[in-house]
Amino acid sequence: MELKETTISETTVYDGHIIKVRLDEAKLPDGSTAPREVVVHPGGVGIALEDEEGKFFFVTQYRYGQGQVMLEYPAGKKEPGEDPLETAKREIVEETGYEGLGFVHLGSLVPTPAYDTEVIELYYAKQGEFRGQHLDADENINLTRLSLDEITERIVRGEVTDAKTVAMTFLIKEFKERGTIA
Amino acid sequence: MELKETTISETTVYDGHIIKVRLDEAKLPDGSTAPREVVVHPGGVGIALEDEEGKFFFVTQYRYGQGQVMLEYPAGKKEPGEDPLETAKREIVEETGYEGLGFVHLGSLVPTPAYDTEVIELYYAKQGEFRGQHLDADENINLTRLSLDEITERIVRGEVTDAKTVAMTFLIKEFKERGTIA
Repeated sequence: MELKETTISETTVYDGHIIKVRLDEAKLPDGSTAPREVVVHPGGVGIALEDEEGKFFFVTQYRYGQGQVMLEYPAGKKEPGEDPLETAKREIVEETGYEGLGFVHLGSLVPTPAYDTEVIELYYAKQGEFRGQHLDADENINLTRLSLDEITERIVRGEVTDAKTVAMTFLIKEFKERGTIA
Repeated sequence: MELKETTISETTVYDGHIIKVRLDEAKLPDGSTAPREVVVHPGGVGIALEDEEGKFFFVTQYRYGQGQVMLEYPAGKKEPGEDPLETAKREIVEETGYEGLGFVHLGSLVPTPAYDTEVIELYYAKQGEFRGQHLDADENINLTRLSLDEITERIVRGEVTDAKTVAMTFLIKEFKERGTIA
């Protein structure tokens, strides 16, 4: 079955701080039309930073849309036109204070395919020199370090639900088993 | 560090078909205020349906916001007030034609914690009787079946990027290793 949809018209219905929202009209494969809502997001990165003892850095922060504190790998939004690897190198220092060494791209993740343009590029790196944490004014986070076994247990118990954190944890385990990352 | 943020005011800036968008003002732990954009989504389910040969059902569909055809586990939105297990039982028949037997809740996934209320409940089930596929008018999908090894290879090669599909694949493997699911 042919699946591709094409844009007939685009209407921006909200142009905000982080996101923009469009309500488009799309032509479906059978020739009919349908409304398509799209949240436009610049995309971002998630970074798994491993220390010398094999533990990974995690941030806990209040996630307003979820109404709860969540534990996640460090992450951040791309600046306009920024290469995601540069975003990753910048964000890991800003959030943890440490630079990353030997960045490896683990893959891309689409968190919300049905209605959002966001793509998260996933990176692995080793802990480097301390450069000093530098958070945004409205960003309050706590840092913690956990081994892959510890984070896996929290995921299995249902205590960690952030999609990138679940996906990255298992991808790192898979790539370590395959020898893709040391 | 105290992390909780509290809502000072809520303003709906877009009230659409599937999503609603709010621009709130929030009080941060230090007493200052910050704008918080929230995409309000009813939430949904993802279902891993295993056939008698140990293969799982996948749907490929055009994802308008991503501009590409993507391969994913069957999934769907909750109707207002609907129990997610009921959504899962309904959606698996609608998308694959088969009912699911012995549903197991694998966990909850938050795809976009920074700015979205969406939570996806993940389920595993065995393939039951054929009841007939029943798609929405604007829903065009192709069905395929893959083993856990096959979908894992596609994930590792970067061909499968949907967050729930990556997370569910590894959760199923983890739960099968632990004997939580047979």
